[in-house]
Amino acid sequence: MTKNTKVNAAIIIIGNEILSGRTQDTNTSTLANWLNSIGVKVNEVRVIPDIEKTIVDTLNTLRKKNDYVFTTGGIGPTHDDITAESVAKAFDLKYEIHDVAFKILEEYYKPGEFNEGRQKMVWMPEKAELILNPTSGAPGFSVKNVFCLPGVPSILKSMLGGLKNKIVGGEPILSHTISLRTVESEIANSLTKVQDQNKDIEIGSYPFFHAGKLGVSIVVRSENQSKIDKCSSQILKFVNEKKIEVVDR
Amino acid sequence: MTKNTKVNAAIIIIGNEILSGRTQDTNTSTLANWLNSIGVKVNEVRVIPDIEKTIVDTLNTLRKKNDYVFTTGGIGPTHDDITAESVAKAFDLKYEIHDVAFKILEEYYKPGEFNEGRQKMVWMPEKAELILNPTSGAPGFSVKNVFCLPGVPSILKSMLGGLKNKIVGGEPILSHTISLRTVESEIANSLTKVQDQNKDIEIGSYPFFHAGKLGVSIVVRSENQSKIDKCSSQILKFVNEKKIEVVDR
Repeated sequence: MTKNTKVNAAIIIIGNEILSGRTQDTNTSTLANWLNSIGVKVNEVRVIPDIEKTIVDTLNTLRKKNDYVFTTGGIGPTHDDITAESVAKAFDLKYEIHDVAFKILEEYYKPGEFNEGRQKMVWMPEKAELILNPTSGAPGFSVKNVFCLPGVPSILKSMLGGLKNKIVGGEPILSHTISLRTVESEIANSLTKVQDQNKDIEIGSYPFFHAGKLGVSIVVRSENQSKIDKCSSQILKFVNEKKIEVVDR
Repeated sequence: MTKNTKVNAAIIIIGNEILSGRTQDTNTSTLANWLNSIGVKVNEVRVIPDIEKTIVDTLNTLRKKNDYVFTTGGIGPTHDDITAESVAKAFDLKYEIHDVAFKILEEYYKPGEFNEGRQKMVWMPEKAELILNPTSGAPGFSVKNVFCLPGVPSILKSMLGGLKNKIVGGEPILSHTISLRTVESEIANSLTKVQDQNKDIEIGSYPFFHAGKLGVSIVVRSENQSKIDKCSSQILKFVNEKKIEVVDR
């Protein structure tokens, strides 16, 4: 893959606790920020329940449409952890004990503590490649373009470093943010004109409410810094003409 | 719809800012908690970019599979706000000025302030029903089973009250949480047995790290309180046998 290729990914958040509202997902923004920083654009995120057929179908849809798929959740020791078996089914692979993962956990736990519950965590699709876990022992794994990570945010974060060599990104996606003391409707038409003149640039407009004051952040995104600069200066031109204050944010 | 029917929903989070990792979505948990409280189960969440074809296709897939679909984002005045037009296309309806919405915003703004940018917010699919906005004027809308809400979390929250009469839920989904000072692998086998004996109950197991200590929350979910009670007492039985501490959380 050359550095000029656009590389994209989908994220599958597996877990009833997100769908019930009990738990606030933060893994999407962790993964999305990290993927962006290595030149991988997130096309889509799906949050799905712990139901095998749903996991298998979602995996099979998204792994064909994206360069990479990341899953979070469902790789622990309990009965509701069914991600590994679902990945095996999606790829039509055997679900079996991973010898290296077994050795890692056998060494990680004290003698006698590597019990049946924990041994469930070394069952993986055959030929899975391990993603090492510096926090709590039990590794994640990848099969082809599907990378399976745990749901606990601190553990997931600690595993991203070990993934870096396995993900080949495209050009990093750069961005520039211009925050303004205004409301969206004051700048909507001018911003539309800038967007029309820069069709290959992604311009987003996001209202915010901070420290008791309203504002709008305009985010300009592209792989090309000079295009971002050109677009940003067109935005600052109408901002100056309208005498709108630029603020730090 | 009777009170014994299971009612389900999907949520579509529309916005590049979530996919880029720039913004942490909180609307999913707000909507999911609220829907649960009125007996609507969230089956699926999708986060998708501001691309018309993607929005139209996602709407058409999910509105047929779910009793309700909620969208957040993309109903403001700027060029990247394309939800209303996309909903019109998904339902093959005209995209036109909504007279009542026009009057609401004409009164909301000071004379002369209801400019072209703001007028974009009254363009909706024909025959859209309004969802009133007590915070910032511009209403959301619904078409059949699709309900379109804004992306700004505080505004979205303020609009849920006005939705209550339009959403007919099933039996409320009840839950009971038992938090334990243990790790998942210590209870995995016992919990599997309880799940096997209570196949119609959803039992989730969620590790946590709080105040410097590890623990696991077991969440038992069902529409039936006596089933929850029975299942919870089975869990507490093995918890007592294993001398595991129950903690508040």
